[in-house]
Amino acid sequence: MKVGIIMGSKSDWPTMKLAAEMLDSFGVEYETKVVSAHRTPQLLADYANGAKERGLKVIIAGAGGAAHLPGMTAAFTALPVLGVPVQSRALSGLDSLYSIVQMPKGIAVGTLAIGEAGAANAGLLAAQIIGTFDEAVMEKVEAFRSEQTETILANPNPAED
Amino acid sequence: MKVGIIMGSKSDWPTMKLAAEMLDSFGVEYETKVVSAHRTPQLLADYANGAKERGLKVIIAGAGGAAHLPGMTAAFTALPVLGVPVQSRALSGLDSLYSIVQMPKGIAVGTLAIGEAGAANAGLLAAQIIGTFDEAVMEKVEAFRSEQTETILANPNPAED
Amino acid sequence: MKVGIIMGSKSDWPTMKLAAEMLDSFGVEYETKVVSAHRTPQLLADYANGAKERGLKVIIAGAGGAAHLPGMTAAFTALPVLGVPVQSRALSGLDSLYSIVQMPKGIAVGTLAIGEAGAANAGLLAAQIIGTFDEAVMEKVEAFRSEQTETILANPNPAED
Amino acid sequence: MKVGIIMGSKSDWPTMKLAAEMLDSFGVEYETKVVSAHRTPQLLADYANGAKERGLKVIIAGAGGAAHLPGMTAAFTALPVLGVPVQSRALSGLDSLYSIVQMPKGIAVGTLAIGEAGAANAGLLAAQIIGTFDEAVMEKVEAFRSEQTETILANPNPAED
Amino acid sequence: MKVGIIMGSKSDWPTMKLAAEMLDSFGVEYETKVVSAHRTPQLLADYANGAKERGLKVIIAGAGGAAHLPGMTAAFTALPVLGVPVQSRALSGLDSLYSIVQMPKGIAVGTLAIGEAGAANAGLLAAQIIGTFDEAVMEKVEAFRSEQTETILANPNPAED
Amino acid sequence: MKVGIIMGSKSDWPTMKLAAEMLDSFGVEYETKVVSAHRTPQLLADYANGAKERGLKVIIAGAGGAAHLPGMTAAFTALPVLGVPVQSRALSGLDSLYSIVQMPKGIAVGTLAIGEAGAANAGLLAAQIIGTFDEAVMEKVEAFRSEQTETILANPNPAED
Amino acid sequence: MKVGIIMGSKSDWPTMKLAAEMLDSFGVEYETKVVSAHRTPQLLADYANGAKERGLKVIIAGAGGAAHLPGMTAAFTALPVLGVPVQSRALSGLDSLYSIVQMPKGIAVGTLAIGEAGAANAGLLAAQIIGTFDEAVMEKVEAFRSEQTETILANPNPAED
Amino acid sequence: MKVGIIMGSKSDWPTMKLAAEMLDSFGVEYETKVVSAHRTPQLLADYANGAKERGLKVIIAGAGGAAHLPGMTAAFTALPVLGVPVQSRALSGLDSLYSIVQMPKGIAVGTLAIGEAGAANAGLLAAQIIGTFDEAVMEKVEAFRSEQTETILANPNPAED
Repeated sequence: MKVGIIMGSKSDWPTMKLAAEMLDSFGVEYETKVVSAHRTPQLLADYANGAKERGLKVIIAGAGGAAHLPGMTAAFTALPVLGVPVQSRALSGLDSLYSIVQMPKGIAVGTLAIGEAGAANAGLLAAQIIGTFDEAVMEKVEAFRSEQTETILANPNPAED
Repeated sequence: MKVGIIMGSKSDWPTMKLAAEMLDSFGVEYETKVVSAHRTPQLLADYANGAKERGLKVIIAGAGGAAHLPGMTAAFTALPVLGVPVQSRALSGLDSLYSIVQMPKGIAVGTLAIGEAGAANAGLLAAQIIGTFDEAVMEKVEAFRSEQTETILANPNPAED
Repeated sequence: MKVGIIMGSKSDWPTMKLAAEMLDSFGVEYETKVVSAHRTPQLLADYANGAKERGLKVIIAGAGGAAHLPGMTAAFTALPVLGVPVQSRALSGLDSLYSIVQMPKGIAVGTLAIGEAGAANAGLLAAQIIGTFDEAVMEKVEAFRSEQTETILANPNPAED
Repeated sequence: MKVGIIMGSKSDWPTMKLAAEMLDSFGVEYETKVVSAHRTPQLLADYANGAKERGLKVIIAGAGGAAHLPGMTAAFTALPVLGVPVQSRALSGLDSLYSIVQMPKGIAVGTLAIGEAGAANAGLLAAQIIGTFDEAVMEKVEAFRSEQTETILANPNPAED
Repeated sequence: MKVGIIMGSKSDWPTMKLAAEMLDSFGVEYETKVVSAHRTPQLLADYANGAKERGLKVIIAGAGGAAHLPGMTAAFTALPVLGVPVQSRALSGLDSLYSIVQMPKGIAVGTLAIGEAGAANAGLLAAQIIGTFDEAVMEKVEAFRSEQTETILANPNPAED
Repeated sequence: MKVGIIMGSKSDWPTMKLAAEMLDSFGVEYETKVVSAHRTPQLLADYANGAKERGLKVIIAGAGGAAHLPGMTAAFTALPVLGVPVQSRALSGLDSLYSIVQMPKGIAVGTLAIGEAGAANAGLLAAQIIGTFDEAVMEKVEAFRSEQTETILANPNPAED
Repeated sequence: MKVGIIMGSKSDWPTMKLAAEMLDSFGVEYETKVVSAHRTPQLLADYANGAKERGLKVIIAGAGGAAHLPGMTAAFTALPVLGVPVQSRALSGLDSLYSIVQMPKGIAVGTLAIGEAGAANAGLLAAQIIGTFDEAVMEKVEAFRSEQTETILANPNPAED
Repeated sequence: MKVGIIMGSKSDWPTMKLAAEMLDSFGVEYETKVVSAHRTPQLLADYANGAKERGLKVIIAGAGGAAHLPGMTAAFTALPVLGVPVQSRALSGLDSLYSIVQMPKGIAVGTLAIGEAGAANAGLLAAQIIGTFDEAVMEKVEAFRSEQTETILANPNPAED
């Protein structure tokens, strides 16, 4: 396991699975788990405290509304934590975004975009981080990047599918 | 000690002291402490876990930015938790407000206004809560309320000091 | 009757009934009523003025848009008032939230999240307040809290229902 | 007295006096008073209930934050009510604006701009309303309007004072 | 004709017809017309310039997006102008609201809520303005207000239709 | 005269003069004038109607708050109109931005950034537009662009002045 | 080819085709292409660098979210660049708008409204720019403008189709 | 050199130097440079393209307003890019935040808080990333984290300096 993907609720999974799929595409191993900052705070502390020991290199945490999971995970571990603001109902994820990104000096969360794009990019950025010391992963990231460039170059007409 | 007043940083004190002053005016005993959700998460867990045992009835928590202190306090105790969004620099406390008020179903924080008015009202609401079972406190709240009504009635000319 | 649940319009009931259901789950007695700050201001004054005499301990008030009901209820009683910003059409409840939470110093409303989560949590916080002097209710709150923790711990796989 | 100018607090006077000055310039009589929706709700009810009897034609109400004064005044009288959102500290009057303008169907407040421009325009619009049945006032409004047009036409160079 | 109801586009009619229906309920005569500030600016100038001569007492103007119609109408007439921010697609009427309410000192627009409630209330406020000099209209407004109060009082149970 | 620079008030000049200075740097002739959509609507109509006849190629219009000047100018001329949202007091120019940029289909305003950067860029974009048919101006724009690139390349150390 | 219409993704085409249709209506030749600032940055540089050589006079660029395409296009060419904020999912195009319009001093993008109206108006403004030196195009723009005025004047009843 | 710190303008240095100071405290080598996405786009492409070759592991990019630097850097390199939204004048950094964080699927930027806290945390997160493969750096991060915890624990009285 290199990456932990956690989320505050099962209802976050349709968003967060895009992080998992991105890691799958790079062959990076990960685990997924529901860990709620508010409803299972002790589990969160235990999970984050033990993450490095278990070999995790990066943690991806997604949550919506008053989204405390990424920041509280970062409070319990020195591993890099990436936060995904899940789109909320009333405020469309703006509450999630502010709750995740506006961390005080001294505890950092690398925050991605609201919703599915952010979840996918959390997987991508986790792979890039692992790629800083694992050249095989970096090469896969670079191949992915080249491929998405080629896809556009090969099909530049906006009016054609 | 009936009320605990906690805050994420000493820089929150100029705001949060208004909660203390309000409780002083009602003769309600309280304690004050810096407890950071992010920098001292274990202290927060211990503080909130032990609050009821130590006789606290209400906890007032103030924080700014990605303000996780009130919600995480509520995660560790069943005592009523009141949250004060401290005014932040870039987003004027809107980040603090969203981070505190938009709690998910199952963990509640009673949120007050951004900044000093909110801190003072957190003290007032804590006294009102205590007043639900302590008539002496309720009478002091009612006297305070009557007095502020009288102050306006006695001096209704806006152009005079 | 321990708790009064009031709302500005019948259209708020699908939201506010979550407060009632939460109180039901704790066995806390409550009453429900449509009371409009704007269309029945005298009823509001009478309701709030008489609330303590009738034995209420907490009032939960929900309203949307220029949501004056919680603040005006608090203006007429010294009982703790909890406000629920009902999600509005154009501004998604942001107008409701600002109208409820930004109370001036001297009259407090404990504000919950926009919409259904906020309504449910208003019921929960009302029970927590009653639990400060009624240990039986506090125990039910603690049981509810434990149960929701257990539910997550027992079923941590986000991809499984 | 043709116009009542009320405000939630003496601190609103530096803003609201611009309404008074505008009415002065048209020779329209007015009264000014501090009336707080939250701290003097009974005074508000009495003031608004008696306004028509005392000969008022329009009420201008200014308030900041959770600004309930204009809407609650409108709840107690059928006279036209004009609302001025006073600029607040944390949210720059956006809370005031939403609290005043987003009234539900059935109780109307004619809302002006945030701050001093809005207060001046509340005086102007009150005079325009009186001018619908008092041609002498309408002529003064038209003269004011012509004069401000002439001022610009006579001095069109932006770089000159 | 006492009231002119204008709007920037036919697509505003589903909103603005609520102003017409409200005036119908008071027996106040009105006219309706599509007048676009941007696409028919000369028509707007002519309409507003001639409004007083034709006997209009109040103009209600509704528009969405960069909603210039109410403010430009007010620029061409000294009659009271009421503005209705029509709900827009991307910004939900927030653009409409800001464009209408934030008028500079010297030209006033009395602004109502975003969307249908605002349109209905524009009709109501127009009737209240006419009621300042036409007691028969004022009595109808008061009857409408009493009736909506009675409707709530007669049916206070939120869970019953 | 190739460019007209107009603004709603003399108070906009400290912002709008940056447009003039940019045009000066390219040797593009321009005129400046205070033209208020709200206070001098007829002047605005005359100015915009006659602009093409007088040889103007582009109009730059700056205004704040309910900023109708750019859109109304565009309503009266088929020349390209560039809009500058002047920073307002309460809403920091967000009202100005929405009022200028959210034009309906059929009348276009090319909108620049809020405040001084936007005013300078309006001058720049006006020169670029003139440069589409006047190669001498385009060369000056290109020289300006090269120069600002060189300035950075020559001085890349952020910690040095 | 006089105008280049580029966009960050094929998913922007339903919006951006309105720019093409507007140019079609004026008989202005254009090309369309998918060019992603993020996924094909070199293509963007090449496209913008070569645009003037290929005879383009104006570039229209549409993008959503962190919409860097218009600004980066402007960074590589001195041709006028018009930006269209495509409506995004979570933030309704507010992110697109801010990313496009808030350009720093020295690189200008003329920004249109969010979504379809903005795309159509980008086509219109491009034609107006070309019309500054091509009178035949200007006449077509003026005819379009007259026609839309006539359409409203001929059919002013909002309640009729 | 392990980390590159780039920013769009020298005016960003007072913010971005906090990233440098944080890296200094961990003994992580870094370079600093002004690289403007808009004014030196070719430099940006060259810088990002060559970053990995030169041994950089992480790039920190700060910018304000339409902040394209972080996203465009990420477009040219597969190294992890961290973005710092510099506080802007009119919109307080909200434009910067949206422009940086709302990246589309396929190109990721790990975004930190607006302003100085975000810059410091970018330095911290860069060290954490390096710490995933350099245990010496990770130990320094952990020591820093422990120290800031101890500082609070040793000095918990908010009213004392």
